[in-house]
Amino acid sequence: MGWTRKDLLTIRELEAAEITTLIDTAASLQEIAGREIKKVPALRGKTIVNLFYENSTRTRTSFEIAGKWLSADVINFSASGSSAAKGESFIDTARNIAAMSPDVVVVRHSSAGAAAVLARDLSCSIINAGDGAHEHPTQALLDSRVARSNIHAMRKLGMTVTVAGPPTLIPPYAQELGVKVAYRLEDAIRDVDVIMMLRLQQERMTGGLIPSLREYSRYWGLTLDKLRAQARPDVLIMHPGPVNRGIELSPELADGPYSVILDQVAKGVAVRMGVLFLLAGSKGGAQA
Amino acid sequence: MGWTRKDLLTIRELEAAEITTLIDTAASLQEIAGREIKKVPALRGKTIVNLFYENSTRTRTSFEIAGKWLSADVINFSASGSSAAKGESFIDTARNIAAMSPDVVVVRHSSAGAAAVLARDLSCSIINAGDGAHEHPTQALLDSRVARSNIHAMRKLGMTVTVAGPPTLIPPYAQELGVKVAYRLEDAIRDVDVIMMLRLQQERMTGGLIPSLREYSRYWGLTLDKLRAQARPDVLIMHPGPVNRGIELSPELADGPYSVILDQVAKGVAVRMGVLFLLAGSKGGAQA
Amino acid sequence: MGWTRKDLLTIRELEAAEITTLIDTAASLQEIAGREIKKVPALRGKTIVNLFYENSTRTRTSFEIAGKWLSADVINFSASGSSAAKGESFIDTARNIAAMSPDVVVVRHSSAGAAAVLARDLSCSIINAGDGAHEHPTQALLDSRVARSNIHAMRKLGMTVTVAGPPTLIPPYAQELGVKVAYRLEDAIRDVDVIMMLRLQQERMTGGLIPSLREYSRYWGLTLDKLRAQARPDVLIMHPGPVNRGIELSPELADGPYSVILDQVAKGVAVRMGVLFLLAGSKGGAQA
Repeated sequence: MGWTRKDLLTIRELEAAEITTLIDTAASLQEIAGREIKKVPALRGKTIVNLFYENSTRTRTSFEIAGKWLSADVINFSASGSSAAKGESFIDTARNIAAMSPDVVVVRHSSAGAAAVLARDLSCSIINAGDGAHEHPTQALLDSRVARSNIHAMRKLGMTVTVAGPPTLIPPYAQELGVKVAYRLEDAIRDVDVIMMLRLQQERMTGGLIPSLREYSRYWGLTLDKLRAQARPDVLIMHPGPVNRGIELSPELADGPYSVILDQVAKGVAVRMGVLFLLAGSKGGAQA
Repeated sequence: MGWTRKDLLTIRELEAAEITTLIDTAASLQEIAGREIKKVPALRGKTIVNLFYENSTRTRTSFEIAGKWLSADVINFSASGSSAAKGESFIDTARNIAAMSPDVVVVRHSSAGAAAVLARDLSCSIINAGDGAHEHPTQALLDSRVARSNIHAMRKLGMTVTVAGPPTLIPPYAQELGVKVAYRLEDAIRDVDVIMMLRLQQERMTGGLIPSLREYSRYWGLTLDKLRAQARPDVLIMHPGPVNRGIELSPELADGPYSVILDQVAKGVAVRMGVLFLLAGSKGGAQA
Repeated sequence: MGWTRKDLLTIRELEAAEITTLIDTAASLQEIAGREIKKVPALRGKTIVNLFYENSTRTRTSFEIAGKWLSADVINFSASGSSAAKGESFIDTARNIAAMSPDVVVVRHSSAGAAAVLARDLSCSIINAGDGAHEHPTQALLDSRVARSNIHAMRKLGMTVTVAGPPTLIPPYAQELGVKVAYRLEDAIRDVDVIMMLRLQQERMTGGLIPSLREYSRYWGLTLDKLRAQARPDVLIMHPGPVNRGIELSPELADGPYSVILDQVAKGVAVRMGVLFLLAGSKGGAQA
């Protein structure tokens, strides 16, 4: 299927065939990472701006590497200490960046919908690299950092999805998305193909949503014992990182043979190459 | 006219013919922004260092894009958190950078004359990207961020210039520069070709130079009503950004058809390409 | 001699022939700095990540320029404000970076042995760009910033080395390394070929190791008078920078004809090019 979108804002809006196109493109570009010379001319002369209003060095680095391997020019624009401090609005800053003729702006912002606002306003391609707890589509194609994006993708591709956790952490939209809910870890991991752990966001855990880290870890932390008791022997463990070792995941699992956590990081570069290529490099994209 | 200067420090020192050469060079390079492949080999193998002692992400980004489109290597050296914290002097840091053989150092510093000091001391080309309230020549070729640079350029090119504002904000050097002074906005905008608004520097406005924002806005804020009453129907509005919407300029004007504010940003990349090319790329420049 | 190491962690582990190979490689690449087009394709398609947990803008810039002149992709990953703030461990961050398939990770960290930990754990090449007061091998090939690295290099190459300073600042390992110790500056500089000054680390001088700056400067500061009284007329003065002018070195010496301080900076780029080339570019290196 050809790609016709100008932007990548959410997984929700994508059709299954588009997700497949994106994954296939990423898969075909992934071998670049293993080459002696990691460089193809696909995006030569294209300009990518990473416009980050939140620190996310890993996501930024992943996009920067992806862009450079495709021969694009990549410019990092960190909004801290910039015109933001002079009271310039988000949209004004973005319009200024857009006036410099980038092909793609990768935007990270704490407000839900920030990327969509830019996509409507600007003629260049916009990639949503995380807008608060809302969506983070390139991450969703890898893991579970933003559960909502991920559930959309998995459901569209026909997977059976169960979300599991203490009731205070289960998002209210879970059942509307067509997923099962489990209130015991043991029930959730039985006979599944993949266990996607979520990072317990300690830095956002000031609201008293869990009684204590110790209790959370006891009931919801995944350990080798629990895994062996309930899960298939060929189960895969995913995690968006950074892992809270010993809280949601035991160190032996995080670093052991079930884990594909670092493969996810490697594929993250491939997915970002795929998205950048579809938006900026192909004739069906915004630049055609 | 050929270009023979090693550095670009001030507009004041340029002859009219040099300004014209610079603008013509920028104009010829501007079409790169509209190309499918925004890349020319003009500065391949040249090294540009952005040495910024003040935050100015937009100016830095504009130079970085300009350099990369011309195929130069661009290195950002932010002096915060660098050797400056170890007590190294500005000139020592610059000499160290210069010892790494850059072709051009783009310098931004809060002290008037900082760029001139480097130009005398170092053999590489120096571009002044703002030294306090003194000069900012590449900006002056675009707009009115630094009034002094701008007035020099406009007067040399034969324009009639009026400065307008409350007496406390009119610089004492205004009349020496051969400009008219208006103490009512309505007088200033009558029959002119271009209205260049200045940004009211709120963050520098702690000295009580204006009685209140409300009063400033009432008397000196440009609105559609005032424009229609006094100005030509084809007048252009310029502004260096970021606009204080509703203070010096009403939102409908900032985003409306009279405004060329975002064109200025786009031309900013072209002007920086022009300067970089003249200093580092042409045989008449410092590298010959 | 061919180069077979995956990493450059310490000078101590290198044989004299390896140091010579490294210096010879740097010397052969140094002429790039003087070219009209400072660009060779040696590392085209190679990816270098600067992973800096401490501010060291000059070292980072030196590596960045070196990598770019060799046509590598260079990505700066500053750990401040990154996942470090989310509690991610150093090794987890580094594994994530490594999963993105860089060829070389240049690491700067305040803990002794940090680079060695990464070298054992990761398959890419690691360059130690300073781990606390321990080692900083690419700097050691230039000057005396980290005395230990330097002494190893000089002793292996057959030089006679004297360390000099107040007893509280002489490292306890000095004599084990086969160097002489002098407790008067006048004794140390008599008839030597090179005087390598050390920077008095004022920001680390809170421990009362010297009685006062004034007294330190009087006894241990090098001045033109002391130099003329004791040293050879063709002696060279080195210093890692930034110089504390008037404390360890008088301004007239720092900027005078005996000084090769800025030559060291220039050669720093060459040495980094040499190391990057040996690790990532030659068939004998890790990438073969």
